[in-house]
Amino acid sequence: MEGNRIASCEEIMRNKQVILREHVRGFPRDVDMEVRDGSVKLKVEDGSSGAMWVKNLYLSCEPKTRLLMDTIRPGSPITGFGVARVVDSANPKFKKGDLVLGITGWEEYSLIASSETFFKIEHTDVPLSYYNGILGMPGLSAYVGFFELCSPKKGESVYISTAAGGVGLLVGQFAKLLGCYVVGSAGSQEKLLKNKFGFDEAFNYKEEADLDAALKRYFPEGIDIYFENVGGKMLDAVLLNMKSHGRIAACGMSSQYNLEQPEGTHNLMNLILKQVRMEGFLVSSYYHLYPKFLETVLPHIKQGKITYVEDIVEGLENAPAALVGLFSGHNVGKRVIVVSRE
Amino acid sequence: MEGNRIASCEEIMRNKQVILREHVRGFPRDVDMEVRDGSVKLKVEDGSSGAMWVKNLYLSCEPKTRLLMDTIRPGSPITGFGVARVVDSANPKFKKGDLVLGITGWEEYSLIASSETFFKIEHTDVPLSYYNGILGMPGLSAYVGFFELCSPKKGESVYISTAAGGVGLLVGQFAKLLGCYVVGSAGSQEKLLKNKFGFDEAFNYKEEADLDAALKRYFPEGIDIYFENVGGKMLDAVLLNMKSHGRIAACGMSSQYNLEQPEGTHNLMNLILKQVRMEGFLVSSYYHLYPKFLETVLPHIKQGKITYVEDIVEGLENAPAALVGLFSGHNVGKRVIVVSRE
Repeated sequence: MEGNRIASCEEIMRNKQVILREHVRGFPRDVDMEVRDGSVKLKVEDGSSGAMWVKNLYLSCEPKTRLLMDTIRPGSPITGFGVARVVDSANPKFKKGDLVLGITGWEEYSLIASSETFFKIEHTDVPLSYYNGILGMPGLSAYVGFFELCSPKKGESVYISTAAGGVGLLVGQFAKLLGCYVVGSAGSQEKLLKNKFGFDEAFNYKEEADLDAALKRYFPEGIDIYFENVGGKMLDAVLLNMKSHGRIAACGMSSQYNLEQPEGTHNLMNLILKQVRMEGFLVSSYYHLYPKFLETVLPHIKQGKITYVEDIVEGLENAPAALVGLFSGHNVGKRVIVVSRE
Repeated sequence: MEGNRIASCEEIMRNKQVILREHVRGFPRDVDMEVRDGSVKLKVEDGSSGAMWVKNLYLSCEPKTRLLMDTIRPGSPITGFGVARVVDSANPKFKKGDLVLGITGWEEYSLIASSETFFKIEHTDVPLSYYNGILGMPGLSAYVGFFELCSPKKGESVYISTAAGGVGLLVGQFAKLLGCYVVGSAGSQEKLLKNKFGFDEAFNYKEEADLDAALKRYFPEGIDIYFENVGGKMLDAVLLNMKSHGRIAACGMSSQYNLEQPEGTHNLMNLILKQVRMEGFLVSSYYHLYPKFLETVLPHIKQGKITYVEDIVEGLENAPAALVGLFSGHNVGKRVIVVSRE
């Protein structure tokens, strides 16, 4: 072991990185990011207890990446969840060669100072990239938001915005497996929601001049559960259409991420009139449920009961455009950036 | 008994009423209401099963009265909770002479078609008017919103808007009895919250140019529980100051009741970032908890552990002004209109 470690210490590697140039205002643009080459020694410095170097394999590209951009320093790489292989470790939880899932950088190699967000990947009889989506944080988000926060019951009416995204597609399928009536909206490809993913109904929100009317068409008796991914005008229309004692799991509000001033939500009085519970959540508070979640979802995948689609982008050099394109609403399935297939 | 009933059937009584002239836009004004005399026969017609005539004694005057005005027909009396005595009844649950609490009219005598909202008053060793406040729906609202929805714990930080109102004063005292840090805001008389009702701190929201800064002053570490009575700008400021895993019980949004277009709430993204649960409720869904609530609160009152203040308005002829004045924020305690002391 010690011999291996010394050998890896001496490697100096090229490290291609996607760097945040400066803080983004509004929608991210290609020019906000720069792909450049650095070099790294893949050695954990003595005394860096808990640190490890990882080789990034698959990175998750999602609306929250935009939010994370506000938390990093210009000149640093973009951050987000990814699947990686440990190449050097002073962390007792992970050893060289382990496959891991956690918050890493948009670069070929990352030094991980804290392993709090990291999970060891144990099941490798499914594609590794799945750990960015259905088996990763989007999957856990769908599971937690739907089952833990919304206490769904068979036969209830479920509405999902950004339904063609990584989280939404799973919520819809979880809801169908439970026996709910499920409607999703998306910015394009909405027909796939019905034809490929088994949603009962789907619509393109861009084609609806009146979102309230659209929701009344699909939910004449109202919505029991709303899985909130977008916020803004959609939330306002949903509030008008919630059933009494409805539940809203707020997972994201992607329509607001690029605004300097968030839009106002005007119909909150309906939370009272309809006795609605709205709860926001961050998947990071539910890591303890990850093993239970995997136990639930792995059999569904292996038995083909859940359809999973990836939207694969090859190479870090294409990562900025992949992030920018996310907000035009044309992708279906989980967008993953392949850094290396090893 | 039958003899009594026949006797009461024949009485023709003057019935002073507070009539809604036409639907109100914005704040209610005196001229929206008219006090006039009618006459009634206090006899439940044959075949009106479940109906009863009541003599109204004490009426509750509260912000929600304004909301109820949108649900009644012009030409009808204002409606709301009140304490009354049954004068004739075809309802097996209530007999002549019973004291009851329920939704009645702003008039001397009301015909109650449905007794769904009605409770029989059993404990008469406290002032009857209390059943409009601390022992009635405001009390049950405070109890349900604070204990059932917010799961409060000793030592938590609690903020209450409209803290000098009928519900807010109780929430604050419940929270103090539990051992919470309690701050309230009001439109006037805020000093009484500290000096008379035992709040830890209080402020006048009208004197704060920056509500966010005011909340940061009183809650440097954030708010665990917000008891929402006003909505609008206050809610926006609160959202910026909630602690992680905070809870908001939405009981009312009185700042919005008089607006033709509700204000926008801009900071809902904080529900996600701070993982806040916001839940609206109507006390009507919690009537089953009324006996449990009475068991809890009656001993507190008898032992003097809860301070209760009423803001008594004498006579139906003063009721319109009492309602109008409610929205200028000058009352302290539960506003009650005395129709008759019998």
